[in-house]
Amino acid sequence: MSDEPLGIALLGAAFMGRAHAHAFRTAATMLPGSPSTRLELLVGRDAARADEAAGQLGFARGVGDWRAAVEDPAIAIFDDVGPNDLHAAPTIAAARAGKHVICEKPLGRTADEALETWRAAHEAGVVHLCAFNYRFVPAIRHARDLIAAGTIGAVRHVDARYLQDWLVDPQAPTTWRLRRASAGSGALGDLGSHLIDLCRYLVGEIDAVAAQTRTFTPERPGGPVDVDDAVSATLSFAGGASGTLTASRVAPGRRNALGLEIHGSEGSITFALERMNELGLYLPGGPPGTDGFRTVLMTDPEHPFAPAWWPPGHLLAWEHTFVHELDHLLRAVRDGRSVRPHGADFEDGYRAAEVCDAILRAAASGRTEPVAYRTVA
Amino acid sequence: MSDEPLGIALLGAAFMGRAHAHAFRTAATMLPGSPSTRLELLVGRDAARADEAAGQLGFARGVGDWRAAVEDPAIAIFDDVGPNDLHAAPTIAAARAGKHVICEKPLGRTADEALETWRAAHEAGVVHLCAFNYRFVPAIRHARDLIAAGTIGAVRHVDARYLQDWLVDPQAPTTWRLRRASAGSGALGDLGSHLIDLCRYLVGEIDAVAAQTRTFTPERPGGPVDVDDAVSATLSFAGGASGTLTASRVAPGRRNALGLEIHGSEGSITFALERMNELGLYLPGGPPGTDGFRTVLMTDPEHPFAPAWWPPGHLLAWEHTFVHELDHLLRAVRDGRSVRPHGADFEDGYRAAEVCDAILRAAASGRTEPVAYRTVA
Amino acid sequence: MSDEPLGIALLGAAFMGRAHAHAFRTAATMLPGSPSTRLELLVGRDAARADEAAGQLGFARGVGDWRAAVEDPAIAIFDDVGPNDLHAAPTIAAARAGKHVICEKPLGRTADEALETWRAAHEAGVVHLCAFNYRFVPAIRHARDLIAAGTIGAVRHVDARYLQDWLVDPQAPTTWRLRRASAGSGALGDLGSHLIDLCRYLVGEIDAVAAQTRTFTPERPGGPVDVDDAVSATLSFAGGASGTLTASRVAPGRRNALGLEIHGSEGSITFALERMNELGLYLPGGPPGTDGFRTVLMTDPEHPFAPAWWPPGHLLAWEHTFVHELDHLLRAVRDGRSVRPHGADFEDGYRAAEVCDAILRAAASGRTEPVAYRTVA
Amino acid sequence: MSDEPLGIALLGAAFMGRAHAHAFRTAATMLPGSPSTRLELLVGRDAARADEAAGQLGFARGVGDWRAAVEDPAIAIFDDVGPNDLHAAPTIAAARAGKHVICEKPLGRTADEALETWRAAHEAGVVHLCAFNYRFVPAIRHARDLIAAGTIGAVRHVDARYLQDWLVDPQAPTTWRLRRASAGSGALGDLGSHLIDLCRYLVGEIDAVAAQTRTFTPERPGGPVDVDDAVSATLSFAGGASGTLTASRVAPGRRNALGLEIHGSEGSITFALERMNELGLYLPGGPPGTDGFRTVLMTDPEHPFAPAWWPPGHLLAWEHTFVHELDHLLRAVRDGRSVRPHGADFEDGYRAAEVCDAILRAAASGRTEPVAYRTVA
Repeated sequence: MSDEPLGIALLGAAFMGRAHAHAFRTAATMLPGSPSTRLELLVGRDAARADEAAGQLGFARGVGDWRAAVEDPAIAIFDDVGPNDLHAAPTIAAARAGKHVICEKPLGRTADEALETWRAAHEAGVVHLCAFNYRFVPAIRHARDLIAAGTIGAVRHVDARYLQDWLVDPQAPTTWRLRRASAGSGALGDLGSHLIDLCRYLVGEIDAVAAQTRTFTPERPGGPVDVDDAVSATLSFAGGASGTLTASRVAPGRRNALGLEIHGSEGSITFALERMNELGLYLPGGPPGTDGFRTVLMTDPEHPFAPAWWPPGHLLAWEHTFVHELDHLLRAVRDGRSVRPHGADFEDGYRAAEVCDAILRAAASGRTEPVAYRTVA
Repeated sequence: MSDEPLGIALLGAAFMGRAHAHAFRTAATMLPGSPSTRLELLVGRDAARADEAAGQLGFARGVGDWRAAVEDPAIAIFDDVGPNDLHAAPTIAAARAGKHVICEKPLGRTADEALETWRAAHEAGVVHLCAFNYRFVPAIRHARDLIAAGTIGAVRHVDARYLQDWLVDPQAPTTWRLRRASAGSGALGDLGSHLIDLCRYLVGEIDAVAAQTRTFTPERPGGPVDVDDAVSATLSFAGGASGTLTASRVAPGRRNALGLEIHGSEGSITFALERMNELGLYLPGGPPGTDGFRTVLMTDPEHPFAPAWWPPGHLLAWEHTFVHELDHLLRAVRDGRSVRPHGADFEDGYRAAEVCDAILRAAASGRTEPVAYRTVA
Repeated sequence: MSDEPLGIALLGAAFMGRAHAHAFRTAATMLPGSPSTRLELLVGRDAARADEAAGQLGFARGVGDWRAAVEDPAIAIFDDVGPNDLHAAPTIAAARAGKHVICEKPLGRTADEALETWRAAHEAGVVHLCAFNYRFVPAIRHARDLIAAGTIGAVRHVDARYLQDWLVDPQAPTTWRLRRASAGSGALGDLGSHLIDLCRYLVGEIDAVAAQTRTFTPERPGGPVDVDDAVSATLSFAGGASGTLTASRVAPGRRNALGLEIHGSEGSITFALERMNELGLYLPGGPPGTDGFRTVLMTDPEHPFAPAWWPPGHLLAWEHTFVHELDHLLRAVRDGRSVRPHGADFEDGYRAAEVCDAILRAAASGRTEPVAYRTVA
Repeated sequence: MSDEPLGIALLGAAFMGRAHAHAFRTAATMLPGSPSTRLELLVGRDAARADEAAGQLGFARGVGDWRAAVEDPAIAIFDDVGPNDLHAAPTIAAARAGKHVICEKPLGRTADEALETWRAAHEAGVVHLCAFNYRFVPAIRHARDLIAAGTIGAVRHVDARYLQDWLVDPQAPTTWRLRRASAGSGALGDLGSHLIDLCRYLVGEIDAVAAQTRTFTPERPGGPVDVDDAVSATLSFAGGASGTLTASRVAPGRRNALGLEIHGSEGSITFALERMNELGLYLPGGPPGTDGFRTVLMTDPEHPFAPAWWPPGHLLAWEHTFVHELDHLLRAVRDGRSVRPHGADFEDGYRAAEVCDAILRAAASGRTEPVAYRTVA
């Protein structure tokens, strides 16, 4: 394995692009042993603005066409954080060109699109990661570890919610996120896909869903809205657990409120992204009369990711999820191995998309819809 | 209207009977203008034990057969807090004998049974109340008032959970609550019915549901379990809102965790029964940069029920719900009017049962089931 | 020991009188084995109004002069919840007449007055209780039990706060509580005395204090204010711990916010009266990475007072403190023993007053003032 | 004003050095308009290890003697995050050499030392900043802005606590932080100095203190401890407010729990560093019955620092305080102005040290000690 810095191309210069650029730099300087990178290309909509953004984000140069990145031999990793309708084509092309690929969620606007993307990466033999970054919240990794260790017993139930409120105002203008053609779905693909991935990561495979969707503001400045403002679903897990899922972009006061509550046969876990440095945990035991949910501040030396950062009690941020995620990817690339199990690969991205599709089918049919997973092997 | 104290018969001497007995006494002494009562008859399973319990609970005497109460002209109000399979027959007989009736939830083990109970009370022309006592939590009444006043705008979504953990231990023995024949259903009828009633009270009529149920421990000391340990559902409201419902008696660490989160078009409300003196409220407005969920301590003079009790900041208890509820009933009886809208009458009890039945049908069929309400008029 | 009901006289018909009346009734009916009582005399300012209040609060009759109660052979227990300047004289007279006595805090407006009251009760040989009712919050009793069992090790620090906000409005009129002559002190005697008693109960004896007081509104409708609106102090404990004390009636948004945080050598305890059904507890141990403060809901069967009430998760109220306290007193009277260690007797009342006096001296002198306790033996 | 990057020398390669190095880099890339910097010199204890650390932290080279940095014309800013006994001499020398200086708190081990450091910087005419980084928490800046705007009226009371628990274990070895000669004081200078600065920043000047200190473990592996494990104090403010201060490194379960509660004449503010993205706020007003403390998530566009980062609801971290602080310093250097009022300059550093000294005097004398501030002008 060479010590050459890995050349990075990044598609997308909005806030997510900024977050990734910052994370690449931070991983390199703050995480000992993280493979070194060169921020080569920033891909934007037009060359001039991309070049300007490249300067701001610390990339060597900007280009207006993602094909330039695909063809550039200096690029080892193609990182696609563009809008949903720019996930599949660039990522597939990059993979076929032998680039390792990371793609923002949802991997595709539909399960079919996600499947094709996975297929391309799989056949190309490159490392692939679907950017379900919340797997890299320390509390989530810790929850996974605790569940895997049997600490709360067999999981029986999960309530999963992801609530935002930026569409409460009916005068908020439409964007690509509000059109099915460009986004695939609304709160479901944007927020619900995170929940689905976390449910799969923490609890296991989902095998059936029932659902309803709502669009409260079908017309906004800029045009009609044909995706869901909110979705509610029940989840059935292959392992026997049940669950509910709620995603909404019209929940007043909930800025970015991803929340989980998981009941096992011997304990419970809760998590709230707006207090992402904490994990709620109920484990019976201890002196008589002292049972209760505990609030674990996720900064102790034995907590995931914590040793790389600060002393106990010094909080991490949303942006650290990207630092952890990209570091994880870079090490997988360096070591020539899959990002699994702790990273979501494109199969995970595809499977989340399959559940999203099933939820839309269920909302349309009024039936519990089974989730059938395909494979590319 | 006479000033004669209202003679009370109470069926049930377990903790709920104790709670009602205490509440009758407390209403009479603590709430100015509450109609006076005489605690006449305690109905138990056998006369001797009922007589002993009567002494403990402050009733004049105990009897072993509810028919004695039905036939007793000294009884004005028949209060049935017995097990679910002793709701319909005694309550129907009491109503037909001209007693005003209050019956513990669920009103019937099935919608049919609840409908017959409602019909009997309706035809007898007596006052009837189904003991959905959480309507009488100050925070719930306040939430209703705020919603009715339009403070949070049109309701769009509600998440409703009621979680307990007394069945986590697989060695917890079976009881009448774990058999369909005696209970009707499990967590659904026991806990979920409260949620359904609160959803109807706060948000409006439910017109369709999808659901799944789980029984994790099908065999317990004492016999098999044929009701649900947990249920998850999606709710569709006639007014356009959607929702989720979760009820479980196997949620470790959740002793009695009824929780609501309601999103309107202009604000949000949250409630947690384990902190029942608080209401969570998000209303935008105020100085710039000060938006956030507020925690309202429900003891201010302008809060429901508060003026009857203590100065601000001095908490009320679970048992106060019964004081408020029974006082409400007594006044309705005295004034010859329905307990609606703030009390749940038997139509409300029936409608909750109809939703419960639809949830069981949906869990069995895997389909979204419409809820069709019948009437007795 | 006779089974005769204990005749009760109650001085004070305001909210505290109402709370005690309710508690006497509730103890008798809800707590098995609680000695029976007869609510005989309600003492008010004039006979007519006292008689009316007696009817409302369930007493046999009202009188306008406390001497009637002192002289009445039907009275076994004299319960003084009148204003502070009506604590000493009636309580001393009652004790000398052989009545068992319970007196609202502060026992005296000054330590001298409290000492004389204690002396009278001591010399009379009657049972005496100073109504520091927060000792009878289940969470407080449990904290005491945990500390006594060494669960958090040696106590090293306590922060104690009691915040209210009913004097924030400068137009709130003056009352007897705002005049030194009638009240002794302001937030200090009213709220701080509770903290002092809880510190002594939970941690141990206080041996020195430093302090400052503030009166932000020296003139109110109705007259001048010559007591403290707020007081801050440091506490030194005989056992080596240190602490801070804050009491205020001008803390916006804090309706009745008594709060404690106690650090031991091996764990910590927190308590907040506005969430009085919860105890916060930090105890290291358990699976790796799971340390954190736990929130214990104080309604489990192994919790103090809980078995007498409802199933887990069903909350108690402020008023239950009086039920527990008066039951405790009644049993002590019946059994002919002191209310100690869990009840505060008049020595405890006196000692709290001695600390209050030391705080006022320290605020005046700007020095750390030792607390010297006298005795009546 | 030149566009030359500002050359940085950093004294200290432990976690605080790492935090500053990361912050310099992050400010440059993430905050538009932030002056550019060159990380030139890392100063450590010996040249070899410093050079290695320089590589890790992104500095051009390492040196073993701070004098090299003082003499280096490439250095514009000297950043001292070394141990307390390496604050004064290097910082004074750097200032005298014309470097702009930033120094970790406490500025000096004593007020005298801090005064000399301030004097040197003042006389040299350089920009100086004392690294009270919590001023740069968005919630703290917002609290300051709200107080300055009169939103909570006149401040009357502040409770300030800073609790950690890394010294609970009596076997935790001694370090320079536990020796008076090297640290000046214990929890007081380490944690209490932050509280003092925040009190001064938010409320105003402190004019008198009373205090007690405790050392629970006077002997540790590695030697004796002659500084405080914990300190409690009362604060008197020149503007009329009172307060309490608690600092402890032996508070089990409190990893890094800086907490503030501030009462004004018209509202209240609370803050907890372990939930640093939130501000608690009580402001009366709004629809009837809706008063309560609100939890403001400090990520809205109108919140301080937020526009530079992520969309609402995406949390910031402890390390952002340094990014904001160093950016603030760099702009002051570029613009040739003081870091005041939002940055703490060396006068602020000195004044905090003066309060610390007064607290130690008060703890020794048992008296309320006035705080007399000197000046260097």
